[in-house]
Amino acid sequence: MSKANDPSLRSWVTVKPESDFPIQNLPFGVFKTATGNARIGVAIGEYILDLQALAKSGLLDTVAFDKNLLSKDTLNQFITLGKHVTNAVRERISELLNENNQELQGKAELKSRVLVKQSEAQMLKPVYVPNYTDFYSSREHATNVGAMFRDPKNALLPNWLHLPVGYHGRASSIVVSGTPIHRPKGQTKADTDEMPSFGPSKSVDFELEIAFITGKPTQLGESISTEEVESHIFGLVLFNDWSARDIQKWEYVPLGPFLAKNFGSSVSPWVVTLEALEPFKVEGPIQEPAVLPYLKYGGKKNYEINLEVEIKTASGKSKIVSHSNFKYMYWNMCQQLAHQTVNGCNIAVGDMYASGTISGPEPDSYGSMLEITWGGKNPVQMPDGTERKFINDGDTVVLKGYAKKDGVRVGFGECSGMIIE
Amino acid sequence: MSKANDPSLRSWVTVKPESDFPIQNLPFGVFKTATGNARIGVAIGEYILDLQALAKSGLLDTVAFDKNLLSKDTLNQFITLGKHVTNAVRERISELLNENNQELQGKAELKSRVLVKQSEAQMLKPVYVPNYTDFYSSREHATNVGAMFRDPKNALLPNWLHLPVGYHGRASSIVVSGTPIHRPKGQTKADTDEMPSFGPSKSVDFELEIAFITGKPTQLGESISTEEVESHIFGLVLFNDWSARDIQKWEYVPLGPFLAKNFGSSVSPWVVTLEALEPFKVEGPIQEPAVLPYLKYGGKKNYEINLEVEIKTASGKSKIVSHSNFKYMYWNMCQQLAHQTVNGCNIAVGDMYASGTISGPEPDSYGSMLEITWGGKNPVQMPDGTERKFINDGDTVVLKGYAKKDGVRVGFGECSGMIIE
Repeated sequence: MSKANDPSLRSWVTVKPESDFPIQNLPFGVFKTATGNARIGVAIGEYILDLQALAKSGLLDTVAFDKNLLSKDTLNQFITLGKHVTNAVRERISELLNENNQELQGKAELKSRVLVKQSEAQMLKPVYVPNYTDFYSSREHATNVGAMFRDPKNALLPNWLHLPVGYHGRASSIVVSGTPIHRPKGQTKADTDEMPSFGPSKSVDFELEIAFITGKPTQLGESISTEEVESHIFGLVLFNDWSARDIQKWEYVPLGPFLAKNFGSSVSPWVVTLEALEPFKVEGPIQEPAVLPYLKYGGKKNYEINLEVEIKTASGKSKIVSHSNFKYMYWNMCQQLAHQTVNGCNIAVGDMYASGTISGPEPDSYGSMLEITWGGKNPVQMPDGTERKFINDGDTVVLKGYAKKDGVRVGFGECSGMIIE
Repeated sequence: MSKANDPSLRSWVTVKPESDFPIQNLPFGVFKTATGNARIGVAIGEYILDLQALAKSGLLDTVAFDKNLLSKDTLNQFITLGKHVTNAVRERISELLNENNQELQGKAELKSRVLVKQSEAQMLKPVYVPNYTDFYSSREHATNVGAMFRDPKNALLPNWLHLPVGYHGRASSIVVSGTPIHRPKGQTKADTDEMPSFGPSKSVDFELEIAFITGKPTQLGESISTEEVESHIFGLVLFNDWSARDIQKWEYVPLGPFLAKNFGSSVSPWVVTLEALEPFKVEGPIQEPAVLPYLKYGGKKNYEINLEVEIKTASGKSKIVSHSNFKYMYWNMCQQLAHQTVNGCNIAVGDMYASGTISGPEPDSYGSMLEITWGGKNPVQMPDGTERKFINDGDTVVLKGYAKKDGVRVGFGECSGMIIE
């Protein structure tokens, strides 16, 4: 395990106990300030460490790479350098921010230039996304959806326990947290209607997901084994796979979701590296029936990451509607990427692979309004007296996530989005 | 209509009657030679007009744009300039290649530098593809597949006549004609098997399609009306949506095709502009029931483009297994892109939108082996005495397409790919 993960480390930058960004995290992101260009930074407490400015000071000279890549408006080229570089940068930053290190701490003028308040920065989408896959890997979610839409007695389809079901989503409409999402218009047809009609979706929903971002590409024809997958994953983000249930219901047979999903997906701006999450690995569920050899894996491949979903109304009232956990995933990331590539499908740097809705066993851990309200039967009571079956115009949905162990909290920050007309 | 389409035009470059590339076509592509860099060219007869070299000579000075974009390894930046530039370039080239024009014809040394034999060039993938959608817009194909896999009496699903069904495909695995395709491995399960098994697909198929490439982007939240679509389409290519039927059958419920398709798709290297195809527009089929207002369109939006599929065996024998036509499409490109964006989904320059398998009404016009052999029941007899239910290792599948009217043949060249282990 990286020494940057040592729970005893403390930074000279103030980090509040409830912060997602202690010295053990050091996630990468891309930001802009009122006057400066887009550039790469690392979150620490309430600050961003500006890597472009840090590199100019010479304090990153101990890691050899093209420092111009820190002035790009996406992480893609930086990530392409490989883990031997990106991990070395994370470890060097850990040294520089350590309370016992004076190289940066001791230089007041330099500190004021390289530390930017997060409240004064605009976060950009961290990567350009060449390809996006959405999996469907929570057994609880697949069972809930199958029970509602198909048959409660045979809720899981025959293939579900044998392979991590997935489909291709739209890469172009992935946006960074904070970007408003237009309520999609489209065709819908109630079972009682003879003909479809056109108009704004009446059932816009969130889906609580985590996506991993690949950092090492493959060529067409190559496969990645479950053992090799971790070397291909740069890091993780929170992912809201916005879904219009009424559009989805009418369009999705036989080729899957299309306009019900591609009007927007929101991601959190800070990419938490796989290395920072290493201490939070846990066993996954027992997989029965046994999976085919190419899906077998060794060791702990699930992650204990607490997740929550909050709905904030236009009137400013808010309610947490779900507490879930990434540990519930039936299919883990190693199995997902091994499956995605077993046929030779090539992967690119910056690709996003989302988990699918992460639902736990109890209703308060379900990861979508569809499940929480059980298809609208049990509306959520909001603190302002209104109720929600789905998401209203003016509502903001906020996903949060963090792992915690040995007094260290490694988190993702927020992934938020407001639905507008 | 562009004067570059005038059927009476003749070029001083020899163009054989069966050539796809007369002076009325002038499709754009990207090529490389043994010594030179990747650069943009235009096909004329058996030659490529090297636009990088032409620009250096000053003969493109009449059209104002950044000539450095002609030295890129994709068309994306050139296309981004807009139709007022790309059409002006096509029209200028039409002038320069006209038998009555001496500006280039009269300069032997320059001619030898700007005309490259196609046989001495390597064609590259013409665009970087940020997003790829595959539609399912041939009524005959959807009916055939529905009859085989579901219910012959209700072959079309309820939504099919109301919207152009589509799904997102994998952009990373789109390759240029001539690139070998690895037979995919994956999970399959016969109805009679209790458990799935893993191995090479036993039913690799082609799908005869045409894809359009977008040249004008939109922002998230914007829609494109059917009237506006043509201004967003740069041009068309032949598209082979390789499919592994046995993998598809097991994986595709409920979220659509995934590993059955993303192991590779082949495209022809020359992008035939929408303007070059203007003379070949024809009426589409009557759509009954009437479509919703956002899918209504005026004028002729189908295209009469003859299509054929040839299988060449490893032993060198070949057979044409399908003659189809792009005119059979039930849903046209204007309806497809209007549907894709009606919910606000944003489009990018270089996106590919494929038609779905183009099948005609008769068995010899079906666009896939699945349909031609009716699920393997009627194998194709090959001239070497072997038979085919699907595609064997060592077989090359060649798609061809051309439109013809008033003695002018505007074609796409070839889209070929060999299946290898």
